[in-house]
Amino acid sequence: MAGYFITFEGPDGAGKTTVLEKLVEEIKKKVTCEILVTREPGGSKIAEAIRDIILNPENTEMDDRTEALLYAAARSQHMAEVVFPALEAGKLVFSDRFVDSSLAYQGMGRNLGIEKVAEINQFATDGLNPNLTLFLDIDPKAGLARIAKVRPDKEDRLEKEKLSFHQKVYTGYQEIVKRYPERIKIVDASQDVDQVVADCLAILKQQLPDLFEVK
Amino acid sequence: MAGYFITFEGPDGAGKTTVLEKLVEEIKKKVTCEILVTREPGGSKIAEAIRDIILNPENTEMDDRTEALLYAAARSQHMAEVVFPALEAGKLVFSDRFVDSSLAYQGMGRNLGIEKVAEINQFATDGLNPNLTLFLDIDPKAGLARIAKVRPDKEDRLEKEKLSFHQKVYTGYQEIVKRYPERIKIVDASQDVDQVVADCLAILKQQLPDLFEVK
Repeated sequence: MAGYFITFEGPDGAGKTTVLEKLVEEIKKKVTCEILVTREPGGSKIAEAIRDIILNPENTEMDDRTEALLYAAARSQHMAEVVFPALEAGKLVFSDRFVDSSLAYQGMGRNLGIEKVAEINQFATDGLNPNLTLFLDIDPKAGLARIAKVRPDKEDRLEKEKLSFHQKVYTGYQEIVKRYPERIKIVDASQDVDQVVADCLAILKQQLPDLFEVK
Repeated sequence: MAGYFITFEGPDGAGKTTVLEKLVEEIKKKVTCEILVTREPGGSKIAEAIRDIILNPENTEMDDRTEALLYAAARSQHMAEVVFPALEAGKLVFSDRFVDSSLAYQGMGRNLGIEKVAEINQFATDGLNPNLTLFLDIDPKAGLARIAKVRPDKEDRLEKEKLSFHQKVYTGYQEIVKRYPERIKIVDASQDVDQVVADCLAILKQQLPDLFEVK
């Protein structure tokens, strides 16, 4: 693949979306290649339809394996329609969440096993790994408190889960970070947002110097 | 599991649904246990919603991996809500299509590989295999001709595929039958329907004699 693929991960309320927005504003000034910011399953009608099933709060009888397979299905469609074409065109692609979210939420949070969930996602992504993953590290309790403050009435089916679930997800993330130290870099997301953005930028420069060479 | 799980497989137009109906009428007279006839993803709101996405003829941009993962997702939901509870209650469960369909249609028909599709379905079914599978064997061309005759205007997204696709699916089935000779038994589905039903019944009696002991 010609482009770069960078993913953002972290517990609910870590501030991924805000940080990603601000980071991209900074990056735009510094690189020449085209940038695509996406979130799963953005930009694909089929993937959005799948996401609607996953997040519908009425779907209380959703089986854990079904949930994991639906995330993988939405992901493969998003890859086929959005991510692969962008990377092939040499773009710098940022994704708000990717496979690691499934490993943490379904593999660990739902007790399905990180290995098994990794296997079905290997299939979904045709084996593609991000060049770099930024893990926005925040205590799950603090993350949930942020969400409750910003959008108190709009929790989806996964955000509604108990704190114990989110704590298990966090343990999952820590496990994954340990497994892939080369790919995943930790950012302290409890800091002021501008500092978080600055830390992300510093890591990008260090890990992917080629990106910044031209301008 | 206390019950028995029997699946019906075969190309489109093999007559699975008709044969299954007639067979169950016969079986009812001969066994004491309760019978459940289901088809994926019957009896589950979530699984039906997933099936709607898969079969919608408008979803022309569906990625092959997405299709395979969606079938697996609908399957796991159907297992959780319908099949596992029925088997645990000691029922005799018949399913119109199961994992072998995915191996043939997605693994072979879509060139995703039988092994890989088997892997994600192993996850979806939590490793459960049918006690017996009846493969209704018909030449795919003859099968499609039957469908065109019976319901000419109601083809779904998969039935609309070219003959070459259905021929590949058929090759897939032949490969699968070779792999699992103990579990899968072949029935000549080009015969008169009553003869097909009689053949199915004979195989059931031979393979699962315990079922017929009581009455």
